[in-house]
Amino acid sequence: MAKPSPLTSRAADFPRWYQDVIALAELAENGPVRGTMVIRPYGYAIWERMQSDVDQRIKATGVANAYFPLFIPESYLSKEAEHVEGFSPELAVVTHAGGKELEEPVVVRPTSETIINSYFAKWVQSYRDLPLLLNQWANVVRWELRPRLFLRTTEFLWQEGHTCHATQTEAQAFALRILDEVYRGFMEEVLAIPVLSGRKTEREKFAGADASYTCEAMMGDGKALQMGTSHDLGQNFSKAFGTMYATAEEGRQEYVWQTSWGVSARMVGGLIMAHGDDAGLRLPPAIAPVQVAVVLVRDEAGAGDTAAALAAELRQAGLRVELDARTDVSFGRRAVQWEIRGAPCRVEVGPRELADGHVVLVRRDTASKSTVALSGVVHEVAEVLRAVQADLYAEAEAFRRARTTEVSTLDDAIDAAQAGFAQLPWAAVGLDGEAQLNASGITVRCLQRPDGGVPTSLEEPGLVASVARAY
Amino acid sequence: MAKPSPLTSRAADFPRWYQDVIALAELAENGPVRGTMVIRPYGYAIWERMQSDVDQRIKATGVANAYFPLFIPESYLSKEAEHVEGFSPELAVVTHAGGKELEEPVVVRPTSETIINSYFAKWVQSYRDLPLLLNQWANVVRWELRPRLFLRTTEFLWQEGHTCHATQTEAQAFALRILDEVYRGFMEEVLAIPVLSGRKTEREKFAGADASYTCEAMMGDGKALQMGTSHDLGQNFSKAFGTMYATAEEGRQEYVWQTSWGVSARMVGGLIMAHGDDAGLRLPPAIAPVQVAVVLVRDEAGAGDTAAALAAELRQAGLRVELDARTDVSFGRRAVQWEIRGAPCRVEVGPRELADGHVVLVRRDTASKSTVALSGVVHEVAEVLRAVQADLYAEAEAFRRARTTEVSTLDDAIDAAQAGFAQLPWAAVGLDGEAQLNASGITVRCLQRPDGGVPTSLEEPGLVASVARAY
Repeated sequence: MAKPSPLTSRAADFPRWYQDVIALAELAENGPVRGTMVIRPYGYAIWERMQSDVDQRIKATGVANAYFPLFIPESYLSKEAEHVEGFSPELAVVTHAGGKELEEPVVVRPTSETIINSYFAKWVQSYRDLPLLLNQWANVVRWELRPRLFLRTTEFLWQEGHTCHATQTEAQAFALRILDEVYRGFMEEVLAIPVLSGRKTEREKFAGADASYTCEAMMGDGKALQMGTSHDLGQNFSKAFGTMYATAEEGRQEYVWQTSWGVSARMVGGLIMAHGDDAGLRLPPAIAPVQVAVVLVRDEAGAGDTAAALAAELRQAGLRVELDARTDVSFGRRAVQWEIRGAPCRVEVGPRELADGHVVLVRRDTASKSTVALSGVVHEVAEVLRAVQADLYAEAEAFRRARTTEVSTLDDAIDAAQAGFAQLPWAAVGLDGEAQLNASGITVRCLQRPDGGVPTSLEEPGLVASVARAY
Repeated sequence: MAKPSPLTSRAADFPRWYQDVIALAELAENGPVRGTMVIRPYGYAIWERMQSDVDQRIKATGVANAYFPLFIPESYLSKEAEHVEGFSPELAVVTHAGGKELEEPVVVRPTSETIINSYFAKWVQSYRDLPLLLNQWANVVRWELRPRLFLRTTEFLWQEGHTCHATQTEAQAFALRILDEVYRGFMEEVLAIPVLSGRKTEREKFAGADASYTCEAMMGDGKALQMGTSHDLGQNFSKAFGTMYATAEEGRQEYVWQTSWGVSARMVGGLIMAHGDDAGLRLPPAIAPVQVAVVLVRDEAGAGDTAAALAAELRQAGLRVELDARTDVSFGRRAVQWEIRGAPCRVEVGPRELADGHVVLVRRDTASKSTVALSGVVHEVAEVLRAVQADLYAEAEAFRRARTTEVSTLDDAIDAAQAGFAQLPWAAVGLDGEAQLNASGITVRCLQRPDGGVPTSLEEPGLVASVARAY
């Protein structure tokens, strides 16, 4: 039997539970410089899988990867007025290098719109160069006063896509395509986290964008997490940097229309908080670095050899498997570790069950156990993994439904948002209402059409605001 | 017919040729901050393939990826005396962040030994925690006064492995295993670049290492390029940071033995200079982002459909294919572009040959052309790619052999190193001789055993020094 969990319970103290999971599952630690983070191998393995899947989806839209410098001349930031205003309090500045004071200080990139646009201005000449679709995987720095591992750190890992298009329509469509095919698709299909796709209000949008689109997820405490954003930049940066193209028809010079979009290792935080329970992480099989932990109970009566052979057989079937034969550590302690680490399926191989030709199969999400004949393990594990992936999604969706309240007034929204999401007509909120929500620690997470679709204009009738406390 | 190359010839001006290739193949550009680099999509695609292959080889040795912060407290660097001396002239320092002056300035990592060791000291407690084998893919910064794209830039992309072992023997063996299985294996098998694996002299070793091992390649101008290094750190960092483990037998506290090792995007520079010719890049098929360029000559008589079908068929066969149907650009110009970009195989689809059921197949390395029946293209392309991979390696090896001179005196070595590598007994060089070589712009690239093996001690008899001008 597994011992009681060494974690704080979620009900007792959700933030503390979150920290406990990160520490005990060995996902990450604080770095020595305030707000920085060390991502440990198990945490990084989750991020690597996220990168790999998102990268494939990005490439499937025709985007190519590139890399732009970490250091940006300070003057670049100020070329787009709203942009510099948005970022200047968060900048880290290099003033000395190579043993000397620099003539012009350089900032460590908080995001790369400015430096990338200075190259777009050179690279784009004619309609033939469009669309120009780039992405980079990089670290960025935004000085954080209240850091929280994965969710808000001074340095973080992300991808940032940057594109140029000939028309406003095409740019907007591309921003929405990334939001839906890449981000929502990945979050729902791989991370098993249902998200609301919508548009940010003017107050919440990215500094320098015409419109920001977002995927918002509900965490286990009912708070919202912004999991990824995609921006329609209009011509704000192309005008600031002079990125123009000659049109096909008359060779007129026109400013390009642009997008930028990003997701970060913050998604690891979302994964922990969306699915975790009081025993630790619960990882969807599609993202789990270890899908199956084969745990040797005691190395007697050939159980060690059987466990090793079973692990090999499961690997052969294309699964990610770890064999845990550390019989010098108590079985109970190891079972607890695998629960904390969230491996979706555990196969326990012990001499007692083996005597009958059986092993015990444990589902992490439900903690349900079943006894399975050795010959049927591979088939049964594959079934369990399929079920866990689907059930985690269904559970998260049911939880969100239960914690989402439809209201019609601001007061009711403020009340309902203590426990989850409140949804009300955007017309009942407006700018003043939004300020009032903010004063209560609540933000408008996104605006959606009545059917849940993503609005392309804030003037559309019937828009619904989802409001919540948020990370 | 292809037009004459727009590149400077290698014989006329090798450094200029190198810059021309990088510009015209659209591999990279200078960044706005001195010494930084923008890696464009085609250059980044090469680096991505390098990363992917090296990453797999690293993981095959049991190493896991992790991520440590970009920012390191200044005080960490000074904990290991030789290390700080080696790096302090190159550091970039953040003094201001979040709108304030920092109490303690932070340096942008030039390498991560110090910050990683501060965590190793916490994570390693007993022999059970060993070996601890980590790697990270990251950007690092070393302020460069004479930057050169890919070869020496202020910010560069690399991987850095860091390991802890219980014994000196095991650490040394691991450093050598990485050098051979990961680095030499990758460079020779994938990049088709023959390398000398050897040991660095005391003068050339990494600041803080007991021994540095290296893979050295000969570039097309006869100069050497250090392609990757692996360091036996001894107990230098574990003593500086207090990384100790309790032994299995008696529970004694011992300092761990460590290694660190890295390769960087500098390898892209090596790839250009090892194989490039006067027409541009020549990429080995194993690394080429585009292995086959299917070039539509003119879209007449169904040639466009045939080219598209052929490209699809080649992709189906698992090859990386680009269809070039830009018939609004002259065929000659596009042929030159594909030569500059170094795609190992070009399939030219034109109405004239198609009338006979043929296409033209062009090998990039030899420029040889053959006429191939449509039905045989996939088979023939696969054969060509195999041949190009093997022949580029053989050609580079023959070139190195022709440009390597065995000598017995320093004067002859200085003479011979104007054109390539000189090899002479290490006993004939020694510390004074090494200083004399350095004064002539020549360095000892590595020391090898008489049979080409990697020496584990500088005291071994009969060591051979390979000396050269170097990047």
